[in-house]
Amino acid sequence: MRVAFLGPAGTFTEEAATRYAPQAELAPYPTIHATASAVAAGEADAAVVPIENSLQGAVTDTLDILIHGEGAPQLRGELALPIVHNLVARPGAALAAIRTVYSHPQALAQCRRYLSSPPLDRASAAASLSTAAAVAQAMDEEGAAAVAPLRAARLYGAEVLAAGIQDDMSNTTRFVVLGAEDHPQTGDDKTSICISFDVDKPGQLYGVMGEFANRGLNLSKIESRPTRMGLGQYYFLIDIDGHRLDAPVRAALERVREMASLLKTFGSYPRYKAS
Amino acid sequence: MRVAFLGPAGTFTEEAATRYAPQAELAPYPTIHATASAVAAGEADAAVVPIENSLQGAVTDTLDILIHGEGAPQLRGELALPIVHNLVARPGAALAAIRTVYSHPQALAQCRRYLSSPPLDRASAAASLSTAAAVAQAMDEEGAAAVAPLRAARLYGAEVLAAGIQDDMSNTTRFVVLGAEDHPQTGDDKTSICISFDVDKPGQLYGVMGEFANRGLNLSKIESRPTRMGLGQYYFLIDIDGHRLDAPVRAALERVREMASLLKTFGSYPRYKAS
Repeated sequence: MRVAFLGPAGTFTEEAATRYAPQAELAPYPTIHATASAVAAGEADAAVVPIENSLQGAVTDTLDILIHGEGAPQLRGELALPIVHNLVARPGAALAAIRTVYSHPQALAQCRRYLSSPPLDRASAAASLSTAAAVAQAMDEEGAAAVAPLRAARLYGAEVLAAGIQDDMSNTTRFVVLGAEDHPQTGDDKTSICISFDVDKPGQLYGVMGEFANRGLNLSKIESRPTRMGLGQYYFLIDIDGHRLDAPVRAALERVREMASLLKTFGSYPRYKAS
Repeated sequence: MRVAFLGPAGTFTEEAATRYAPQAELAPYPTIHATASAVAAGEADAAVVPIENSLQGAVTDTLDILIHGEGAPQLRGELALPIVHNLVARPGAALAAIRTVYSHPQALAQCRRYLSSPPLDRASAAASLSTAAAVAQAMDEEGAAAVAPLRAARLYGAEVLAAGIQDDMSNTTRFVVLGAEDHPQTGDDKTSICISFDVDKPGQLYGVMGEFANRGLNLSKIESRPTRMGLGQYYFLIDIDGHRLDAPVRAALERVREMASLLKTFGSYPRYKAS
């Protein structure tokens, strides 16, 4: 099995891909679009990309592929990983000697409290294109450190000077697994859909939600996103507890198809359980 | 009037602050939290921060302040700006001579198509802490350019080599204006609220939405966000067309207060109309 992931190596997305398929051959791709296309092109059996709360601002790209992509791959899995940042440097480096801290600007921002306290408050921040690139830069330079996931530190042989330095201990990134088909029923599944309406009339979304509520189906996520048509027109992204082949979900989706001007089913997949 | 904004100078947030209050004295603050706190501390009359689709990953911080902040400021305005990126460099620099392109990694990612086409495909990308910092770096270095908003180019006296180089022409960032109080009624207003439920039962959100739908009130945004209590528990962020003092909105909110375990009104403000 070959699994494409949003690279480079050493990122949280690689960590997610490893957890999804520990035995698979992993292949990094440079962009979300290229990662997803690897499935369509037959280069990979599955693709792992971030979808929510990512460091790389990737959410929009992933949603765009699901919403707009022709022959878009189906969702066949999800994972949620806590975002843990570490201060890493060359083996033997002393915390007090660090003068420059490299990382992706968002990773630096997520560790602001730690980095603005002694002794790091005397060090200056420097931007990198990715947390993995930051470790490479820190390994190259005396007195430099990087903010990065453990995986990137290991990849370059860097030493952890301080672990878990992020401000927010509950920060989690959600990843999805794309495949040519979605996942068979397991008994504890989720289904992701997207709907929109031609005309913006009060109560339309309410009517759609009634089809789920009246069948006792819980919605674990609901999100409105502006369409490319301009502000004021929206897509609604909805996660339903249940598989699209479960009888109540199927019945609700049939009704929703008549009510919405667009219904796109991204796929059904097992609910992620943190281990 | 003094308006705090998420700095540094030259960013899209400064542009938004200028449009909100063209005559005001603008004061940059280093973080979203510091920008919002300027209002509470009496240092500023209003604060402008990004809330959706920002380059700086700022959304979460802004929502956290609204949801969790004690004595949090009220929403009193909104603005939406198209995100337009430009390739800028020292005056007189030739496009063909550019060897390095600096910017915030997300700005670089948003211009991937342009940067991977000739003649820029031979240049290498380099990360900066902000788009404004990128222009400063480009002004300092022969053969360097930056991806940045026009405002940052002007600030440093840089020349625009190519305008509007972003992949997505419809990318928009939404900003909010925070103040000690929200905005009086204007007749074309929005109200932002946050609700949550102690127990996750199917149909609860549906019941709340019925209070708005049955009064003919349109919801222009609805979004679920995991609470800090862990995955599976959600806040729902809802934008209602209307002012909280309008009779139907007030009646609906009174009912919702009884149905939800938490109802927080972020404030009412005039709907943004692009000029």
